Amino acid sequence: MCPSPVPDGVDRGWIIPIGGGEEKESNPQILKRFVDLCGGDAADIVVLPTASRLVETGERYEALFSGLGAARVTTIDFDTRRDCNEPSRLERIAQASGIFMTGGNQLRLSTIVGGTPVAKLIRLRNAEGVHVAGTSAGASFISEHMIAFGEEGPTAVAGGVRLAPGLGLTNRFIIDQHFRERDRMGRLMTALAYNPFAVGLGLDEDTAAFIGPDNVLEVEGSGGITVLDASDISFTSMDVVDEGQPVSMLGLVLHQLVAGNTFHLSTRQASAGRLARQKR
Amino acid sequence: MCPSPVPDGVDRGWIIPIGGGEEKESNPQILKRFVDLCGGDAADIVVLPTASRLVETGERYEALFSGLGAARVTTIDFDTRRDCNEPSRLERIAQASGIFMTGGNQLRLSTIVGGTPVAKLIRLRNAEGVHVAGTSAGASFISEHMIAFGEEGPTAVAGGVRLAPGLGLTNRFIIDQHFRERDRMGRLMTALAYNPFAVGLGLDEDTAAFIGPDNVLEVEGSGGITVLDASDISFTSMDVVDEGQPVSMLGLVLHQLVAGNTFHLSTRQASAGRLARQKR
Repeated sequence: MCPSPVPDGVDRGWIIPIGGGEEKESNPQILKRFVDLCGGDAADIVVLPTASRLVETGERYEALFSGLGAARVTTIDFDTRRDCNEPSRLERIAQASGIFMTGGNQLRLSTIVGGTPVAKLIRLRNAEGVHVAGTSAGASFISEHMIAFGEEGPTAVAGGVRLAPGLGLTNRFIIDQHFRERDRMGRLMTALAYNPFAVGLGLDEDTAAFIGPDNVLEVEGSGGITVLDASDISFTSMDVVDEGQPVSMLGLVLHQLVAGNTFHLSTRQASAGRLARQKR
Repeated sequence: MCPSPVPDGVDRGWIIPIGGGEEKESNPQILKRFVDLCGGDAADIVVLPTASRLVETGERYEALFSGLGAARVTTIDFDTRRDCNEPSRLERIAQASGIFMTGGNQLRLSTIVGGTPVAKLIRLRNAEGVHVAGTSAGASFISEHMIAFGEEGPTAVAGGVRLAPGLGLTNRFIIDQHFRERDRMGRLMTALAYNPFAVGLGLDEDTAAFIGPDNVLEVEGSGGITVLDASDISFTSMDVVDEGQPVSMLGLVLHQLVAGNTFHLSTRQASAGRLARQKR
């Protein structure tokens, strides 16, 4: 579904996809910035471990966010679609200043949470100013068009990616995660070749896109973010190629961003950001 | 992208997906109703034959709409993404009271028109009251989540469908066409299993969904429309099944609609509509 309308006079909450494998011990800069954004020692965070089948996933993030100073952290399990209609769990989400979705399998999120009151509430609260982060599968689920799975490799191949509807906090980009580590350039390009309207964001591990209410994305973390802008391509053969064959795409714009760089999702302008200031 | 916001005091234009193979000679009730909706003898219709590779496709619909009394009918070719930036063609679309997208291959529409000024203009004009119809591939392209292709058969099979981003006039449903003729129940169910938020509309040939600004759909034509409402399913195994294996989905609601029946896309209520009145 489309994002909830942002009420007058309110700033939409930040949207923070993380590429998975974020540093948790020595220098947890991404998780720290998320806690600070949510209010620091006043932060009230709910952790949704739905994507994961591991019992300890929620508890682990609870301990991490508490250790980083959050006032209140609660893991809420949604393991069935029935869970997603349970008033007390919805009420707890409605209190939070930040919502965090763990990694696992993004199809668990879309099949269990999709179309339920939980999905609607997260969109509503984000429009009202609550920050929403997701790592790995949790990052993929954030956008309207979600990469469910696909093939490894650096080039676009027909049939190399499978899309599914996601949560829909935004429709400006399509996310892929573990980008460098799992060699996913090709599948992100294939996703864009279907319909070049969206921006592709390939997030390396331990790397996050902090996207403000002004739709400016700033990179945080130790890896890179590959931005693929297909809006000005002059041609793609996606409509005529056979499964398994390479896809022609002419005129993609690619930005490789690192920590401090920014990308404006409305104007599609990349900028050196605080990196340029550091060089002076 | 999301639908353009409807301006205050304006009714959104009708959205009319057609299942392909609509009757053109003896009783062209669907095309006739479209022309009447667009103003009858004042109708100004543009035909977009982009999905088709046949030269005569646009001309054929031009003759049909003129024969049904439309005042002005123009075929506009968009065969490249560059064409979609051409001011005079955009200007012509902006004048029309109705926009008609022909059949062919929906990936030609999404790859050529997606993300261009033409796509934005069609969304804008629909929000401002212009009616938009599409048949076959043109119908599939209408919605935000588009079935690009998939497998035949009556049951949901993992990997049996491939989704791509469409035009985005609405995000309330996912369309499939030639539904009975090409045995597409399974692939529509598979699409819904990914994320049950949307309503599935399976359109038989010579059958159209006339969807008004109130989001009430009325069936027109000689076939049926299968409505699949997955929003209350209690379970799906889509996140764990292997490619090619059957998918578990519990609690789908199915409506088989024929001409005169209605379905409210907001409340998800089906009604006998004018069929009930005829029985009295």
